[in-house]
Amino acid sequence: MKNFRLTVQYDGKRYSGWQRQGNTDKTVQGKIEQILSRMTGHAVEINGAGRTDAGVHARAQVANGKMNTDKTAAEIMAYLNQYLPADIAITACAEMPERFHARLNAKGKRYCYRLCDSGVPDVFTRSYVCAWDNRLDESAMREAAAYLIGTHDYRAFSSVNKRFKKSTVRTITALEIERKGQELWISVQGTGFLYNMVRILVGTLVEVGEGKRAPQSMPDILISRDRQQAGMTMPPQGLMLEEIFY
Amino acid sequence: MKNFRLTVQYDGKRYSGWQRQGNTDKTVQGKIEQILSRMTGHAVEINGAGRTDAGVHARAQVANGKMNTDKTAAEIMAYLNQYLPADIAITACAEMPERFHARLNAKGKRYCYRLCDSGVPDVFTRSYVCAWDNRLDESAMREAAAYLIGTHDYRAFSSVNKRFKKSTVRTITALEIERKGQELWISVQGTGFLYNMVRILVGTLVEVGEGKRAPQSMPDILISRDRQQAGMTMPPQGLMLEEIFY
Repeated sequence: MKNFRLTVQYDGKRYSGWQRQGNTDKTVQGKIEQILSRMTGHAVEINGAGRTDAGVHARAQVANGKMNTDKTAAEIMAYLNQYLPADIAITACAEMPERFHARLNAKGKRYCYRLCDSGVPDVFTRSYVCAWDNRLDESAMREAAAYLIGTHDYRAFSSVNKRFKKSTVRTITALEIERKGQELWISVQGTGFLYNMVRILVGTLVEVGEGKRAPQSMPDILISRDRQQAGMTMPPQGLMLEEIFY
Repeated sequence: MKNFRLTVQYDGKRYSGWQRQGNTDKTVQGKIEQILSRMTGHAVEINGAGRTDAGVHARAQVANGKMNTDKTAAEIMAYLNQYLPADIAITACAEMPERFHARLNAKGKRYCYRLCDSGVPDVFTRSYVCAWDNRLDESAMREAAAYLIGTHDYRAFSSVNKRFKKSTVRTITALEIERKGQELWISVQGTGFLYNMVRILVGTLVEVGEGKRAPQSMPDILISRDRQQAGMTMPPQGLMLEEIFY
């Protein structure tokens, strides 16, 4: 069995997320596995580095999968791109050592959340941007973001309610807010993220940007470890998995 | 009656073009007129500066229309954006002198055609770019483009077969070919364009870029005034009406 690494770009709009769910093929993982299984003649399972939610996009998701095949990496990439729908593309493929695992070996991830908070949202990027009615105060948001960088227990910023068995401590290495014309781009980089963590972080920052929360209230939210203390979960369409670091 | 100017952005994918056709509302003009007629209580007709074909997009189409209304320009824009589908947006609206006519007063137009001629086409812009299998030689294309700039009879670059009653002389003021990563952007600016002219100009340049035609053959095509001598008509999805000049 050879181990291949795939770099995957997708528009998440039509999909119920990355991760295969039973027999449905409305997942990105399911679509790719189906084609690889047909190509190799045996069941292929792939591991994605980031399990993006329904409606979330990826510019460069990374996955790996083991296959019995004589095809080269370039041939596998061409085969996949021939059969994948137009909203999923393989942008790179490489053979890797047997031990490479896209999720377990990932050292970090970067996400970007796009909001349009002024003017008329651009028609051509509307599927990748969250339209927001109120103009946001990005300097207050930057002040709040500074409290969220570092190594913290982010349990308050996660959707899972049941008691966590595993650690909810993560490290955010960068959290940048940039104005790009009518839009705000919120870029979050870290070692790993809890379920819905980026969308709740952004939702909390948006509430700061609207003046509903003080930037200085961030440490109390972290300390509370209580989901109720953090802000709303932002809708998925503005979120893009940008990069996986190894 | 007040005369309003609208700047219109649209994704042309779902539409059979700008210009209203009978009772169908699968045109951009039809969609806008329908809402303005409901808003004013009388039939409103709008004039678009560029009558884009089915599947062609516009970043800043300009139209004008006369209306009986007490609403301000900002209110009309908000009303339209409230009822328009997500793939059409009004990005500006202003009251104009009675004589302003979006098409008759236009001094020039700029179109841009995007081709992806290498690598895997980007998933997020796939609706606005024409994927091309062969890498194109952009320096040969630039050499050919230089012959096409100026004031010429462009009859060979127009789809209409029947004898032209009106002049087919036009002026192209700029024709630029720029490489943007995996893509070529072909930008054409001129005083006006014949039916399908931009798509045939681009198709001819693409054949030059593939080595099927010599750049030096452009003058002969112009002189022939024969559609058969020019290149293919490119598909609509790569074409964007960028700007109207007054």
